[in-house]
Amino acid sequence: MNFCSQCGASIKLAIPEGDNRQRHICTSCHHIHYLNPKIVAGCLPVWQDKVLLCKRSIEPRSGYWTLPAGFMENGESTRHAALRETREEANARVSNLQLYTLTSMAPVSQVQMIYLAQLDDLDFSAGDETEAVALYSEEEIPWDDLAFQTIHNALKLFFEDRKKGIFPLHHIDLERPSKPPEN
Amino acid sequence: MNFCSQCGASIKLAIPEGDNRQRHICTSCHHIHYLNPKIVAGCLPVWQDKVLLCKRSIEPRSGYWTLPAGFMENGESTRHAALRETREEANARVSNLQLYTLTSMAPVSQVQMIYLAQLDDLDFSAGDETEAVALYSEEEIPWDDLAFQTIHNALKLFFEDRKKGIFPLHHIDLERPSKPPEN
Ligand SMILES: [Zn+2]
Ligand SMILES: [Zn+2]
Repeated sequence: MNFCSQCGASIKLAIPEGDNRQRHICTSCHHIHYLNPKIVAGCLPVWQDKVLLCKRSIEPRSGYWTLPAGFMENGESTRHAALRETREEANARVSNLQLYTLTSMAPVSQVQMIYLAQLDDLDFSAGDETEAVALYSEEEIPWDDLAFQTIHNALKLFFEDRKKGIFPLHHIDLERPSKPPEN
Repeated sequence: MNFCSQCGASIKLAIPEGDNRQRHICTSCHHIHYLNPKIVAGCLPVWQDKVLLCKRSIEPRSGYWTLPAGFMENGESTRHAALRETREEANARVSNLQLYTLTSMAPVSQVQMIYLAQLDDLDFSAGDETEAVALYSEEEIPWDDLAFQTIHNALKLFFEDRKKGIFPLHHIDLERPSKPPEN
């Protein structure tokens, strides 16, 4: 951030009175521009013994597999965002959303929410940011070609939980992702 | 948003190619400035049969009672944000955080996460944005003087769930708050 989005003047870094952290402050209108984490929402769509994955056609991690997920937008709910991303990336419709993983990625200031969901039908196809969409059983999952640590975690947890038949919320703090974060 | 935070040029509203919504686009460097929902994180601190509330000393809703909560910051986890806000607003320490309410407020582009938590001790006091901190039993809660709909919901749910002895995650979409949203 170099310029004030309200008045166009230059920005300085300083600690406001009564605060304890450096903020982006406008040198002219003195507005304090706070930076806030972003929410990534998506689905883990299930069809019989398989799950739906998308092969990314955009950076980061183009060519790697992921769950349909993306940045939540203003004016929508987290569930709405998960449904929208599933429709946009996989042209797929899902039902019975249940919050399944909630992952804080503090180093990249993101919070990811993945909903377990039932895939409604087999009428899916690659969206604009997707190269391919496919259903995978546990044995078929391309574990070495998954795009993100959070997606790896969600899939591992799902297949473990499926053996027990219960799918509790997994609340994870990821301090140091071993694969790139969602973007 | 009037000016580009990267180059200082003026912003126009337009639908980028391949998109379906109006975005804030820089007229000079063509950067697309996306707007994203903010996360509010906080705690519902419990001490024996009582809960801790804070009386706000700042707008919005100055003079009304709330749970310690506030905007999550970059570089922290949701739990960290809830702990920090509880310390900042009530000078209180809590343990055993468990995600209890997750509320999407689409009309104001906020997602609120309230963690049920155990208050560690009675050494609490009003922080900078707080006029008073107090413990209230169910009968004593100032229901008509609560600051926000989400706080009302969380407290109602807590006292109901306490009768059953189970505290599941409540995932709520609030389309039209009857009280002002958190801010
Ligand atoms: Zn300014
Ligand atoms: Zn620009």
